[in-house]
Amino acid sequence: MPRITLLSEADLRGLVTLDTEIVDVIEDAFRTLAAGSVVMPPILSMAIEPANGEVDVKTAFVPGLPGFAIKVSPGFFDNPKIGLPSTSGLMMLLSARTGQVEALLLDNGYLTDIRTAAAGAVAARHLARPDAQTAAILGAGMQAHLQLTALCLVRPIQRATIWARDLSKAEAAAQQLSDALGIEVGATADAEAAVMAADVIVTTTPSTTPILHADWLRPGQHVTAMGSDQHGKSELDPECLSRADLYVPDRLSQTRTLGELHAAIAAGLIPADRAYPELGDIIAGTSPGRRSDEQITIADLTGTGVQDTAIANHAVRRARDARAGTLFES
Amino acid sequence: MPRITLLSEADLRGLVTLDTEIVDVIEDAFRTLAAGSVVMPPILSMAIEPANGEVDVKTAFVPGLPGFAIKVSPGFFDNPKIGLPSTSGLMMLLSARTGQVEALLLDNGYLTDIRTAAAGAVAARHLARPDAQTAAILGAGMQAHLQLTALCLVRPIQRATIWARDLSKAEAAAQQLSDALGIEVGATADAEAAVMAADVIVTTTPSTTPILHADWLRPGQHVTAMGSDQHGKSELDPECLSRADLYVPDRLSQTRTLGELHAAIAAGLIPADRAYPELGDIIAGTSPGRRSDEQITIADLTGTGVQDTAIANHAVRRARDARAGTLFES
Repeated sequence: MPRITLLSEADLRGLVTLDTEIVDVIEDAFRTLAAGSVVMPPILSMAIEPANGEVDVKTAFVPGLPGFAIKVSPGFFDNPKIGLPSTSGLMMLLSARTGQVEALLLDNGYLTDIRTAAAGAVAARHLARPDAQTAAILGAGMQAHLQLTALCLVRPIQRATIWARDLSKAEAAAQQLSDALGIEVGATADAEAAVMAADVIVTTTPSTTPILHADWLRPGQHVTAMGSDQHGKSELDPECLSRADLYVPDRLSQTRTLGELHAAIAAGLIPADRAYPELGDIIAGTSPGRRSDEQITIADLTGTGVQDTAIANHAVRRARDARAGTLFES
Repeated sequence: MPRITLLSEADLRGLVTLDTEIVDVIEDAFRTLAAGSVVMPPILSMAIEPANGEVDVKTAFVPGLPGFAIKVSPGFFDNPKIGLPSTSGLMMLLSARTGQVEALLLDNGYLTDIRTAAAGAVAARHLARPDAQTAAILGAGMQAHLQLTALCLVRPIQRATIWARDLSKAEAAAQQLSDALGIEVGATADAEAAVMAADVIVTTTPSTTPILHADWLRPGQHVTAMGSDQHGKSELDPECLSRADLYVPDRLSQTRTLGELHAAIAAGLIPADRAYPELGDIIAGTSPGRRSDEQITIADLTGTGVQDTAIANHAVRRARDARAGTLFES
C-alpha cells in the first residue's frame, strides 16, 4: 500500500523560504533545462468561463532529480468577491523511477510564488549589472514583495520604488518592504520616473496593456517581466524588445505563445521564428549574458515545469530531513 | 484554510462499485459531451524513457457538475520487476465555482478501471444487439474482468470466452468470472473461433499489433476496442474499420491520434479528416446507433476526461453522504 507524505501550506512555509539556497536550486533547474535532456510538455490549460476561471497543469522530468512534479494552478478571478484568493492549487511529487505518488504538497500556490521569485533572482544574477543599486517594482501584490526580496539576495540594492495603479497599495507595500529588507523603499504614482531612475525593473502585474514604455528605458538597465504567464497578458510595450540589446526567455517555446515575446510577434516587430538563447543557456555559459554596463537586458519569465519539479524535490527532501508532514496510506 | 477530503483506495472501493448506477453516470457524461458545452483539453502526456514510464493528465469541465477532475495516470512498465503495479495515480476534484481543491481521490487507478469498464457498458447498451448472449473477451487482465462484468449489466450474456496469449491466464480469468457472474465462461487459445462465435467482442490488451482480424467478423456483431489508449497501441486489424457498418469513437479528436482510427488512417484506409458521430451523439439521439440486427458496429474507446470528472463527482457525493474519508486542512 503506497505511503504518501502530505505537506500542508504551514508545513511548507516552515520548510522552504526565499533564500539563496532556493535561488541556487532554481538556477540548477534552468541549467539542466539548457542541457537538453529535460522533458517538459506544453502546459495543459483549461478555461472555465462560467466562473471566470482557468486551470493550468505543468510538469517536467528533470534527469538527476528523484521525483517529478505535477502542478495544478487554478485561477478563479471572481473569488475575491466571496472572500477567497484568486489562486490556489497544489503540487504532487511522483517517483521518476516508479511513477508512484510520493508526496502531496498542498501549498495553495505558495511554492509557485517562491519559485517564481527565485527565477527573478536568477535572471538578475545573470543579466543585471553587478553594481545595481536601485530597483523599480511595477505592481504591489505578492510578487512585488517577493521579487524585491529576491533581487536583494543577488544584487546590492539600496533603494527601491513601488508603483501601482492604486497608490495606497504601493505605499503599504513600500512600508512593509522597507521594514522587512532594511532598505529605502518609496511609493509613486509616476511609473516613468520610477523606471528611469532604476537599475533593475521588475514588472509583476496581470496587465493586458503595456505598463512599461520603450522610451523610458536607458542604457545599463535590466528588466524582468514576470506577470505575463497567460494568453492575453502583456506588461511591456512591444518596442521594449526591439530596444533591448539582449532578450532572454525562460522557455522560448512558451514566451512565443504566452510571454512578452508573443505580444512583440503579434505586433509584427519580431519574426515568429526568431531564435533567442534561453536563461538556462546563459547560466550554462553556452550563450553570453550581459556584455557591458551599457546594455539593456530583458528577461521574459512565463514560469516553467522545471522550476516546479526543482522546488517540489527540494521541499520533500527538507520534509524528510525534518520528519515533517503527515503520512497517509492508500 | 481550505479543508480537503482525502479518500483512500479502500474508501473508494467501498463507495463506488461497477453497477448500473455508475454506467448511467458515465452515460450522462458522454451525453453532456455531445451537447458541446464541455471543455476538454488535449491530454497532457509525458514520457520518462529512462524508467520506461509515462504519465498522462486528463481533465474536463462538465457544466452542471459541481467539480471538475484532474487525473494523473502514471504507467511505469518495469514496475512488475520490483513487485509494483505498472499503473497507479490519483484524481483531484476541484470546485468548478472557485477552483479550490475539494477532494483528493488516492485511488491508485481504481476509478479509472471502473469508468473505463462503464464506458464499455455504455457502448454495448447503444450498439450491441439487444439480444446479445455470447461474448468474447480478448485479454485476461483487470479490464477483461471488468468489461465482461459491465457487459452483463446491459445485455443478457449467457456465455463468454476469454482469450489470452497465455492460456493459463485465460483459464484463471474464466474460472473467476464464471464464479463471480454465474454464467458459463470458458478459455481458449483460438481467438478466431472465440470471435466468430460471439455477439459482442471486447479487446482489452495493450497490444501494438492486431489481435482481431477483419475476416473473423460476421454480421450482427459489436466490437468494443478499449486497449488503445496510447500512441503505438492498436488491437484491431485496420480493415475492421472498413468492414464495419458503424464506427463510433468516444472522442473523435482522440481516436484520430491514439485509437484504432489512428491505425486505420496510418494504413491509408480512411481519410484523416473523415467525420464520425461520437458515442455521446448516439446516446443523445442526434445520430443513429445500430439500425439492424445485421450491422457490424465498432466502438473505439481511448478514455476521456469527462468520464473522470463524472466518476470523481459521483465518488465525492457518495463520500459526503457516507461521511467517509479523512479531512485535511491546508
